[in-house]
Amino acid sequence: MEEYINIGKRIPKADAFEKATGKAIYIQDLKLPGMLYGKILYSKHPHARILKIDTTRAEKLPGVRAVLTGYNIPPIRFGFYKDNVPLKRDKVRSYRDEVAAVAAISPEIAEEAIDLIEVEYEPLPAVFDPEEAMKEGAPLIHEDHVSLKDKKPTNVLNLPWKLVSGDIEEARRNSAHIVEDRFKVTWVTHCCLSTSGCIAEFDLRNNLTVYSTTQCANLAQREFKDALKAMGLGEERNVRIIKTTIGGAFGSKLDTYPFEYITILLAYKTRKPVKIVFSREEEFFATSPRQPAIIDIAQGCTRDGKLTFRDVSMILDNGAYTSWGATTPTVMMMPISSLYKVPNVRFIPRCVYTNNTYSQAMRGYGTPQPTFAIESQIDHLAEEAGIDPMEFRLLNANQPGEITPQKFKISTCGLSECIEAVGEKLNWKIKRGQRNGRGVGMASLIHVGGGARVYKSDGCGTIVKIDDFGHVDVFTGATDMGQGSDTVISQIVAEELGVRVEDVTLINNDTEICPWDVSSHASRTTFVAGNSARMAARKVKEQILELASKSLGENPEDLDIRDRIIYSKRDPEKKSPIGKILRAAHYTSGGKMVMAEYFYDPPTENLDREFKGNFSVTYTFGTHGVEVEVDKETGEVKVLKYVAAHDVGKAINPMLLEGQVYGGAVMGMGYALTERLILDKGKVKNPNFLDYKILTAKDIPPVIETVVVETEDKEGPFGAKGIGEPGLVPTAPAIANAIYDAVGVRIKELPITPERILRALKELKK
Amino acid sequence: MEEYINIGKRIPKADAFEKATGKAIYIQDLKLPGMLYGKILYSKHPHARILKIDTTRAEKLPGVRAVLTGYNIPPIRFGFYKDNVPLKRDKVRSYRDEVAAVAAISPEIAEEAIDLIEVEYEPLPAVFDPEEAMKEGAPLIHEDHVSLKDKKPTNVLNLPWKLVSGDIEEARRNSAHIVEDRFKVTWVTHCCLSTSGCIAEFDLRNNLTVYSTTQCANLAQREFKDALKAMGLGEERNVRIIKTTIGGAFGSKLDTYPFEYITILLAYKTRKPVKIVFSREEEFFATSPRQPAIIDIAQGCTRDGKLTFRDVSMILDNGAYTSWGATTPTVMMMPISSLYKVPNVRFIPRCVYTNNTYSQAMRGYGTPQPTFAIESQIDHLAEEAGIDPMEFRLLNANQPGEITPQKFKISTCGLSECIEAVGEKLNWKIKRGQRNGRGVGMASLIHVGGGARVYKSDGCGTIVKIDDFGHVDVFTGATDMGQGSDTVISQIVAEELGVRVEDVTLINNDTEICPWDVSSHASRTTFVAGNSARMAARKVKEQILELASKSLGENPEDLDIRDRIIYSKRDPEKKSPIGKILRAAHYTSGGKMVMAEYFYDPPTENLDREFKGNFSVTYTFGTHGVEVEVDKETGEVKVLKYVAAHDVGKAINPMLLEGQVYGGAVMGMGYALTERLILDKGKVKNPNFLDYKILTAKDIPPVIETVVVETEDKEGPFGAKGIGEPGLVPTAPAIANAIYDAVGVRIKELPITPERILRALKELKK
Repeated sequence: MEEYINIGKRIPKADAFEKATGKAIYIQDLKLPGMLYGKILYSKHPHARILKIDTTRAEKLPGVRAVLTGYNIPPIRFGFYKDNVPLKRDKVRSYRDEVAAVAAISPEIAEEAIDLIEVEYEPLPAVFDPEEAMKEGAPLIHEDHVSLKDKKPTNVLNLPWKLVSGDIEEARRNSAHIVEDRFKVTWVTHCCLSTSGCIAEFDLRNNLTVYSTTQCANLAQREFKDALKAMGLGEERNVRIIKTTIGGAFGSKLDTYPFEYITILLAYKTRKPVKIVFSREEEFFATSPRQPAIIDIAQGCTRDGKLTFRDVSMILDNGAYTSWGATTPTVMMMPISSLYKVPNVRFIPRCVYTNNTYSQAMRGYGTPQPTFAIESQIDHLAEEAGIDPMEFRLLNANQPGEITPQKFKISTCGLSECIEAVGEKLNWKIKRGQRNGRGVGMASLIHVGGGARVYKSDGCGTIVKIDDFGHVDVFTGATDMGQGSDTVISQIVAEELGVRVEDVTLINNDTEICPWDVSSHASRTTFVAGNSARMAARKVKEQILELASKSLGENPEDLDIRDRIIYSKRDPEKKSPIGKILRAAHYTSGGKMVMAEYFYDPPTENLDREFKGNFSVTYTFGTHGVEVEVDKETGEVKVLKYVAAHDVGKAINPMLLEGQVYGGAVMGMGYALTERLILDKGKVKNPNFLDYKILTAKDIPPVIETVVVETEDKEGPFGAKGIGEPGLVPTAPAIANAIYDAVGVRIKELPITPERILRALKELKK
Repeated sequence: MEEYINIGKRIPKADAFEKATGKAIYIQDLKLPGMLYGKILYSKHPHARILKIDTTRAEKLPGVRAVLTGYNIPPIRFGFYKDNVPLKRDKVRSYRDEVAAVAAISPEIAEEAIDLIEVEYEPLPAVFDPEEAMKEGAPLIHEDHVSLKDKKPTNVLNLPWKLVSGDIEEARRNSAHIVEDRFKVTWVTHCCLSTSGCIAEFDLRNNLTVYSTTQCANLAQREFKDALKAMGLGEERNVRIIKTTIGGAFGSKLDTYPFEYITILLAYKTRKPVKIVFSREEEFFATSPRQPAIIDIAQGCTRDGKLTFRDVSMILDNGAYTSWGATTPTVMMMPISSLYKVPNVRFIPRCVYTNNTYSQAMRGYGTPQPTFAIESQIDHLAEEAGIDPMEFRLLNANQPGEITPQKFKISTCGLSECIEAVGEKLNWKIKRGQRNGRGVGMASLIHVGGGARVYKSDGCGTIVKIDDFGHVDVFTGATDMGQGSDTVISQIVAEELGVRVEDVTLINNDTEICPWDVSSHASRTTFVAGNSARMAARKVKEQILELASKSLGENPEDLDIRDRIIYSKRDPEKKSPIGKILRAAHYTSGGKMVMAEYFYDPPTENLDREFKGNFSVTYTFGTHGVEVEVDKETGEVKVLKYVAAHDVGKAINPMLLEGQVYGGAVMGMGYALTERLILDKGKVKNPNFLDYKILTAKDIPPVIETVVVETEDKEGPFGAKGIGEPGLVPTAPAIANAIYDAVGVRIKELPITPERILRALKELKK
């Protein structure tokens, strides 16, 4: 097998030095000449009419440059459902509703001005429970929103999401065992260490530049362009997004937010650069968390443990506005239809407006919720069938070549190997079933591993150029928000070109410079941006070998590059440093410097009208296992050992891969055990790290072991599949299953707090 | 003829708004976090031994972060002759010699620290006249510099420049008329409105970024890379040059300067970004002016006025170090060999070290000096031959198809048209020869118009990409230092692509992003960068038409794009907006976004060992004419009318072209009449705009008329040739000739001051 120089190596992150020494420039650090500071006034009620807004005192405050309300801005609408506006008029629908905004010469003056704005409200009845909100007579969040069916006003969104494959009723009849459960998951938030923010600036031709922490620069660009159109600035105005260092995103920076449009409006009004950066409190209550869900699920199996059907219905709290949270059902379909071989599936989700906060993407995007339900219930079903849950999983594990009920084409699949590895590492056969306060549990995942055609394009472009010294510049559409994609793409380009990763400078931060990319989501960057970068590098390499063939007197196909040396494969004594060949080609009449570009869009399908189709080139699988200790007196859960096995295709950088898995597992443990954004009648009660409990270094289990299963996907760059999100997907059910194994109680609601365990233990004793 | 949408249009400069409103970011405006400020201590003597440098008091000053001298820096050498170092040790050779440098937390502290450095000197005999410096026993500027011939120490540089074609002695014998003159020109400086400066910063891997006002980013990059090597940082360190807005360059920012290396060394020592920006005084005495020359010239002609020979020898004051000034003879050869048809030519230049300032490039680069001599003397010779000097010029004018004694291949040539146009506009036949205090004069020029292969590569690269909305990004190697190349390149790309210039964003400021370009010099940018941009745009267009052919059901070759619409040339009703086609191609499985790159290097030759060869693809010609009034009492010269006729190939942007010509003419008038950097025993006596007299708005002649001769060069982008420098080349001789016509005195030394005219008038009366 080929020995790689850059691939499969534990190369430190490209930006590690800068971040560790404080040199990296975050949005917090950035200051433009003449820049103003913006602040936002939020609603005082979860649901109320706005009777009057008096901004006169704020406007008179020295240092204030602009005060905006919903009554003096152009009609910009945004969000998946176009039901959101930058500043609200007539009524507010949640506590995070933006009512007014100020730009001033300092953040302090802006804050003071915000306090001087007087808003008169008439409170309205509010609804915070999606099941309540679905009832007739419930307060209407958007009065003009009507059902497509009966044209009556409703809080239930008109969304087409629904998946049916096979015949559930028939399958029920043919099942030896059936279990039915209701699971609940609540809001959790991303907890990015750098809060959100942006700077907007117009040039003198009204072209807009936004310095942003977005993970989707090209999507934001398009939406801001629409906003400029709504502002009456015409279609030709250009929007440039410049990304600063991103201190975590995890999906939170996928959709655009009101604060961004507010910043743009303030910049337009003042003709100055304007910056809005969230406080930690705003980050907690005014960004969009993972969507909560009420999940009713039934699964059945044959006598010998073969899954027969899976039937899921779900109620999703949409909050007051519609961001990407409402689209999570399209991804929920993936584990529901395709985690394990299950011939008949049905999924009926409903998204319901409430006066709560609204949700959007968060790592795993719609898979952690159903996977918690499915995998908790797999244990339940296995128990009913009298089969060891690991055996049950192996029996039903996906296999290469399979086509799932949602028409996913499984190419490589290492699920069985993952299950077996976890079993072995946990000493499953010995430890399982003691019910002595210690227990083991496992759960698996399926995820897209080769992009995901959720938009019409799933593409990414790359430009590669190489200088006279063999230094390589790579312009990629990809966004490194901390996950390390810059490093991985550099490794891919360096390997393809036969140079070293330190020879590569990666440029990823400017829509004007970087080719288009749909964004960093769906764990697609290593696969899609990686393939794009590899193909651009290959074009560069072909040109170099063509140039070298003349001076080395060999056919290009007999040449290769390794460690900065071009050599003949037939006669390795024929060789030359790459820089020498490049300079010779350059320093001559009609000379040439080598550059190339490539746009890669994977050969996949959008889901069809039935929400079926092969929307990723390949799928990734994994199994996590835990050993826990449960204190029956306190209800406290201690994770003693954590094993994460992933089919990654190929580990481009095992160190970064492990980092992704560690980070995912810890985030998953928070989801399972400690994290919840507490909303009390729509109001976030714990908008800080004291009251919102993420796991810190001292909470990490003593052992987190990663098992890397390399299935060498033939479509992936050097065989790799995506691995950004999977790390947290099966954590919660693995822990829930281990708790059940330890103490015999099954907690069906996240987070699994000591109180919930104690209550369940009490129930058990009855 | 094709009607262009963008070419030939008077489109305002791309950066006009930003510059007019103060939004453009010059090096003066730029501040990096933690940045320190550097200052330089210069020599107190024109020639002296350094006995001792005591920096202890400076080092102790609070706020000082580093003090460097020639004794604590690594051995970096630079300049054309590698005879310069960042900070001098052992001895100083001119007043501008850098002796020590400081980095401190404020410019004021740095300045104070500079004053605290004590240097003990032992003054040495100095020499300021190059003719003196050539004599045996003259003080030696570089003791270790020896003649290649006799190995004896000498101040005469070992340079191979020499051009001989034909037989001068034979030609002399065959001449009916011969004239011999000595002309002298002195130092003039560029007077950039933004003074020079840079910021250097090392990253944590010792890669270097320099924020710079260079007009040759890729050459500076290479030299700084050599410096890093000399600093022991290895070969793999990357150097990135980021250009700020450049407030004029005119050649002054072609070579690297000691201050840049000093900034780099201070940044390396302090591990902080360090900025050095010149004061106006430093800009005058520590940047490198146009080289002075003593020119001995003889020309002859036949009885009927055909030039027979041109014989030039020249002494060039090299100053104490060797920058590009020493290479000007390679360009002086151009007018000497090829302005007018002259069958026999000889040129023997000598560059001589003195204790004066040293020179480098300035607009016209070696052509204004000999053109002053040649064209003043053409009038002299015509008079001897009894032929009207305009007729004389027409008789000898270059013609298309000619190959000159230096082996230049003249393709397009509008010289005769230019001469005739100037004659007509000046009413030459009527006004000439009155000698009544008013006079007319003219002079012509030849210049490279299609690049100039002075380096091994004369290339420039371009990358073009187009987004879903038809917005085009162009990354060019070209440098816009105020001349408007961004606008011209945008016009070329827009025209080629069938969009509008406002659809184009031009990116030209970063070596990491922009493809390689040899630099903005030799009036090559419109031609070379323009061709490169056009070819990249053409590749983009081909891809777009290929994509459109499917949806419009036409062959790509039957399609074209005009004003953002793709249409069928056969059936204009078949059409689609460009954005629609691009989005359709993009938003699909296996989709594509369009990008392309091109590296253009013209098909030219380096000059051979005899300094002959076709080193430009095409040549540009022009004639300037003036009408002057000379006050015989005061010697004052008033330019009443100025006519500038240029063969430009094709005017891409007539407004910017006129701007170049106006600017050139005014700069040329300064060279002719008012400007001189006065050196008194090596010391610049007038380092400010009060004592150094550039022409201002009130000095501009009432009429400057431009005549654009379009010869539609077939190699140029849309027919264009370069026009950056020519505008000032013939000004001085045109004025000198007009003065002679007005009052009968020929001033052979620049500038033509009232004193010199009065003295000559006095001589005349004798």
